Order: sequence, then C-alpha cells, then structure tokens
Amino acid sequence: MKVVIVGAGFGGLRLARKLSNKAGFEVVLLDRFNYHQFQPLFYQVATAGLDASNISFPLRKVFQRSKNVKIRLAELKQVLPSENRIVTDMESISYDVLVLATGADTNFFGNTQLAENAFPMKSTVEALQIRHRLLQLFEGAHTETDTAELQRIMNIVVVGGGPTGVEVSGALAEMKKYVLPKDFPELDFSKMNIYLLEGGSKTLATMSEKSSVQSEKYLTRLGVNVLTGTLVKDYDGKDVLLQDGKKIPARTVIWAAGIKGNIPNGIDKQMIARGNRIKINRHCLVEGTNNIYAIGDLAYMETPLYPDGHPQVAPVAMQQADLLAGNLRLMEKKSNPSRMYEFEYRDKGSMATVGRNLAVVDVPKPKLHFGGFFAWLIWMGLHLMLILGVKNRFFVFSNWLYNYITYDQNLRLIFREFNRPVKQEKNSEAREKKELTL
Amino acid sequence: MKVVIVGAGFGGLRLARKLSNKAGFEVVLLDRFNYHQFQPLFYQVATAGLDASNISFPLRKVFQRSKNVKIRLAELKQVLPSENRIVTDMESISYDVLVLATGADTNFFGNTQLAENAFPMKSTVEALQIRHRLLQLFEGAHTETDTAELQRIMNIVVVGGGPTGVEVSGALAEMKKYVLPKDFPELDFSKMNIYLLEGGSKTLATMSEKSSVQSEKYLTRLGVNVLTGTLVKDYDGKDVLLQDGKKIPARTVIWAAGIKGNIPNGIDKQMIARGNRIKINRHCLVEGTNNIYAIGDLAYMETPLYPDGHPQVAPVAMQQADLLAGNLRLMEKKSNPSRMYEFEYRDKGSMATVGRNLAVVDVPKPKLHFGGFFAWLIWMGLHLMLILGVKNRFFVFSNWLYNYITYDQNLRLIFREFNRPVKQEKNSEAREKKELTL
Repeated sequence: MKVVIVGAGFGGLRLARKLSNKAGFEVVLLDRFNYHQFQPLFYQVATAGLDASNISFPLRKVFQRSKNVKIRLAELKQVLPSENRIVTDMESISYDVLVLATGADTNFFGNTQLAENAFPMKSTVEALQIRHRLLQLFEGAHTETDTAELQRIMNIVVVGGGPTGVEVSGALAEMKKYVLPKDFPELDFSKMNIYLLEGGSKTLATMSEKSSVQSEKYLTRLGVNVLTGTLVKDYDGKDVLLQDGKKIPARTVIWAAGIKGNIPNGIDKQMIARGNRIKINRHCLVEGTNNIYAIGDLAYMETPLYPDGHPQVAPVAMQQADLLAGNLRLMEKKSNPSRMYEFEYRDKGSMATVGRNLAVVDVPKPKLHFGGFFAWLIWMGLHLMLILGVKNRFFVFSNWLYNYITYDQNLRLIFREFNRPVKQEKNSEAREKKELTL
Repeated sequence: MKVVIVGAGFGGLRLARKLSNKAGFEVVLLDRFNYHQFQPLFYQVATAGLDASNISFPLRKVFQRSKNVKIRLAELKQVLPSENRIVTDMESISYDVLVLATGADTNFFGNTQLAENAFPMKSTVEALQIRHRLLQLFEGAHTETDTAELQRIMNIVVVGGGPTGVEVSGALAEMKKYVLPKDFPELDFSKMNIYLLEGGSKTLATMSEKSSVQSEKYLTRLGVNVLTGTLVKDYDGKDVLLQDGKKIPARTVIWAAGIKGNIPNGIDKQMIARGNRIKINRHCLVEGTNNIYAIGDLAYMETPLYPDGHPQVAPVAMQQADLLAGNLRLMEKKSNPSRMYEFEYRDKGSMATVGRNLAVVDVPKPKLHFGGFFAWLIWMGLHLMLILGVKNRFFVFSNWLYNYITYDQNLRLIFREFNRPVKQEKNSEAREKKELTL
C-alpha cells in the first residue's frame, strides 16, 4: 500500500514514523521544509531564547533507518482524486492512500493591510523574522529623533489571548526586564509598552477559569498591558486601529488571533467546514472519498464528546495519527472494516507558560489545576520530552539553564546578507538583499 | 579622545575591548552585522557541522559592561578626512581618531560571471548559503532524470588550495563519506566528486613543505581530487572552464582563491597598495593622514621581517589592535611620540585541519611541525579558546563531541520562507521569497 503523507508536523510525522519499516507499506512524506518544526516553542525563537535549529529536526535524519519512508522536499500544488495522484512543484506522485496533514496557517480574516503589516508566527522562519524586526528596530532607535516615532518603536502589540499570545507577550516582558536595558543602555526601556489584545473577555479562554485568571495576573505582574474585550479593526504598519476607534501606535504587531486550515487545491469545496477545515468522518476519512484522509489542525471531525470539532492542538493530531496508523495496518491485512477504530480525543490536559517560574497547567481527569513554579517545571519537562532528538533536547535544556541562571541569552543575532543574489534552481527567485535573524 | 572603529572582526573588536572602560576614551564600534563572526569556522557552518549562532557573538553582549563603547549597526558609506567624520547609512559620526578594520572580501578578479555563479565564503550568511545550496541540490536530484545534469549536481569544485579551500574540501569529503549516503539513500554518492583546484604547485603554500605534502596526502586519502597547477578561467553556473580549455561540470563552486581589502569611499587612491590594501606606517597610521589608522586584512605594512607585507590572518589583526591600543593610550596621556611602539608581527604558528584526526600545525620558533591526531587536538583546543563566550565554546565543543562520536550532525536544515515579504524600515527591500539555511 502506497501511502503519501503531506505535511511533517505533529500528525504527519507521527503517522510516517508509525508506518516506518512496517511490511506492506511504501510511504512518501512530503513537506515544504526539510525539517519538522516544534511549534510550541516558536515564541522562544522569536524572543531570542532558543536557536531556530534547536526546535527544528531534519526529516531525513528521523528516517535514516527507515527502509520504506521516502522524503520529498516539495510544495503540494494539486490533488487529483480521480487519478489517485498529487502534483507537487517537483513531480507527480501516485498514491493508494493520501493523508493530508498540512495543518493551519495564520488567519488575517481577509484584511490584506493587516496581513502585510502584522507578523504571523506559524513557522520557524516567521519566528526569526519577529526576532529580527525587534532587534533591527531597537538598533535603528539610536538615530531616531522623532519622539512619537521612538514611542512607536517602543510599543509592541500582541493580538490574541490564546496560549501563543500569552506566551510571546510574557517572553517579551521578560526581555524588556532582563535583557534589553543591558544590551541597549542608550535607550530608555521604561517607555517600552507591551500590549496583549484579546477580543473575548479573558486570556486562555479554552483553559480553566483558574488558569485564565492566573495567566492574566502573571502577565500584569510582568508588566504586560492586558486589554480584554478589545478588537482590532486594522493596522497600517504604524498604528493599530481598534474597533472602538482608539489607536495604539506600534511598529511591531504580532498576530496570534486566528488560524485557518491549509486546504490543498483539488479538495471538493463542499467538504470544507468552519475555519477552513476539511470534514472527516470518525476514521479520519475525508467525506465523499474512499482513500483520502485528513488529520490534525486541517481536519474537522464531530464526535459525541466534541460535537463542534476538536481543538486544533498537537495532541489531537498525534492521536489521530495513531488511530489512522492502526486502521491502515488493519486495511493492509484485509481485516473486516468493522474492526476499524473510531476516533475520540482523550484530553490529557493543557498548559501555557508566562515567564520565569510562571505557568498554568490544567488536567481534566482527575480535575486538577497547577500554577506558578510547579506548573512551570511540568511545562519544561513535558516540552523537553516532546522535542525530537537527544541533541536538540540537550541544547534546549542547556539554553534554558543558561538563560535561567544568567537572566540572559546570547542569540540576539541578525543574519543579514549584503552581497549579490544567489541563483537558485527551483522554488526561488533572485533577490537583491535578504534579511533574517537567528 | 573619540575613537571610531569600523569593523568588529578580530582587529576592530580586540581594539574596542582594549579601550573599553579606559579613562579618556569614547569609542564607537561600527559594523554591518550586530555580531562578531568567527571566520576560521565558516567552513563548518557551510558543511552543517556547526550552527551559525555558535560562531557568532552579539556585539552588544560583549560590551554590556562597558561604559564608553557604543555599538552602531550601520554600513560605512563615506570617510570625510578633511571634516574628521564618517557618514553611515544611518547617521554622520565625527571622530578624533578613525580606525578602519573593515577586513577583506572575496576577490573574483573582475570576472562578473564567476562572481555571479561561484559561492564566496567570507561571512556567516555566505557559509549558510553554501549549506543551503548543497542540500537543496541533493533534494532536487531525486526528480532529476538527465544523467549529465545529475552528475553536475554530484560534482563540487573548490577553488583555492589555502587553508579555507583545504578545510572546506576535507569537510565535504567527510560529509560524502559519513552523512550524505545515510540522509539520501536514493542517491548514489559513489558518483560524487570533490575537486580542489589550486593554481600553484601545492596546497597550503604559505605553510611548511611538510604541511603542504601532508595536507595533500590527507585530502587524497579522504577522496578529494586535488588538482594543483590548475587555473580557473571562467564559470557559467554549469561548467568550470579551466585555463587549459578542459571543463568540469559542477552546480556548486566554492571560491576561496583570493581576497581584496574593503576600502571605504573617501580614502585617497594613492594610499592603496597591492591586493586593494591601505598602506600604513609602522604605527598603523594611514600614510598621508594624521588620525586615520588601518589594521588587519585591510592594511598593508612593510617591515624588515615582512618587506612584502604581512599575511592576512587573524593574529596580525589582533597584534596590530594591541599595538594601536597601546599607542592610543600613550597619545591620550600626551606622552612623547618617540615612545610609541612600532609594529612587527610575531608569528606564533599556523595550522589547518583536513578532517577527523587529520590536521597540520607549524610552529616557527622553535621550528616544529605536527601532523595527524595530535595536530588535530591542538587545532581544536586553540579554536575553542579563541571563540568568544563560554556558551558558544560549550556548544561548539558539544557539537564537535556529538559529531565525533556519532559521525553525524543534525543541522542539515534549510530555513526557507514561503510567505509574504516583510516590510523593513531601513537597509532593506521587500522581496517575494527568500531562502536561507541554518
């Protein structure tokens, strides 16, 4: 059985690993990047706490010992269900079973000006861009003579009070407190403001009431201006326009207020549900097809426990990958279809970290809540466990230990190119000058 | 005394550190990058052995405890000697003393086609580009059906048999041997050829005869095709045209065959010597001026021991920085000019590494030569010592240890951006898509 998996996030990668070296399976794992991205720590890359390589794991390394998993670095251009094949920017690949695990991307809700000016943080490279923007702005502030413009540089707005927004604004507040004044003694960071804007009535709305309250308390303690019930209308790169007409001047806006599924071309529009997700049945099969599956953030499944769909989080993607791997193996053995497993999400808990010694953890069964230092330790331990590769784990731990002891990081690097463009063969264009931060 | 130092390489950074927190000095350290680059290990970044951040040290971190050193991230546009000021892309800065430490860049000897197609390796970002090119080519090879083009992908040409050329071709040979076949099992790396082209009669010509012979022996043992007495005439991105009319098909050419000084605008053309270097006297003073100094690769000084100028290596730059720091302090104290020190280079030795357990070391006094494992240990110890920062040292050592034990690295990452361009304020242009490898 030839299984083509598109996307090497938590779901796709997990499925490929489960099918690796299993008799009867030929697997092709396709991704736009040649590495797995550990999304939960993007915010630490953005705030210079971790190196991009620490949370990126080369796919070819994962499958070095696999005899039946082929890696393809390519972009999916089209699914052709009637021909059982996909077309990428490199080649055409046929399949017996197609698994779509392309995840979700930032949703700017159709506002192009917002999309052009606000920073998303849904990939390692986007996290690096945020880091770069911040450092570059502070460097430029030294020659800024206009007071209003200087304040605009000093204001950072984070939109979205979910885990990403909470974590990145907490980390920014700690940069302001511990790192930036030491690095830029000529600038006055008492003027720096970090705003966290949330449209709803509370931060971490999907977590327990205790966690919501506690996270807001922690953020306020760190100096973040938490503004709940605040909707953003537009952003022109200079001022954030709020729904109530007020403006916040800010050169940096991080947008963590919504995601939408990455639907590939060729998927029947009727199969698309709320949030740009693909409707699947309880076997993860895309409705209306018999050999196309979808898992993870991209997929939308209604179950008795979750009649409105599952949360778009890594554990759902991983549990769906596990289920699908089991069912595919049953199919390969020509087992009776009635033996196939039906999916239900087992929520083992959720957590978010705000800063040093400050985190919140909810466990549903038994119903428990932790906050503060103990929650922070749980958060660290669990994330270390989930990171792929002994070396990455070791380096992330070393970086955390170093940062914890010294109240400092030394990854505040802007990698910028000044030289002539480099010609690329495919997937690229010549460009005069590019900038990236590491 | 206001000292403006342009360039934070081995020379400029050392001088700024020597003047840091010294009474009577106000120092401005200017660089195009916000970090010091550890050039000797660029080749390990290019071959995915080290992370770019491991050999890059943020300048603001170096001077966090300094009360009199200001950092400016900017590009020098013009020196105005008659007005005692410089103009950058950000501002105008006046000086009492100007120190030019802008180093040297790759010299393509006016061949624009060569410059467009061959890869230089004189910055961290350029090293990353080489890594990216190689990985991207091998990824693309999976869908390449033309045999000649496949061979072109499999051929890598390194031009220049100095330390850089020797080190990078050795490291590529080890990638071919230990890493690439595991990562790309679908490709046939027995077809991979690494060529090291040297115009002269031997590799490492500036070192001892023993080192030259030994380095060539080591390279050959690792499978590098060393071609001495071979001059490159041109390169169109597909085939390397040699002086004798022969061609080597290759998609990747690394150019390490020459450098030229980065002369700033505003320097009197008459002061420029061979190799695009600025003529300085034995106090490092640019001839014809009374307050502009030049040190390091950019500078050209004739002394009794070195009547044809000094080698363009880090120790010369660092010793010139030491001398200049001493002389500036004498000047600040209004000491008698006759007490000023005159420069002479004390050569403590030179070394190059070819691969695992393979290096060559020359020491001039007492005249000694080491090769093999012992030389390799000396090379590693010395480079670890020279790297700035405890954390970098620790991470470089950990990476080396990991690579040594596992015969593997896991930094084979292509960081590529697929999303909308990011608007930048200064120093940049919008671009559709950029690629970078880490």
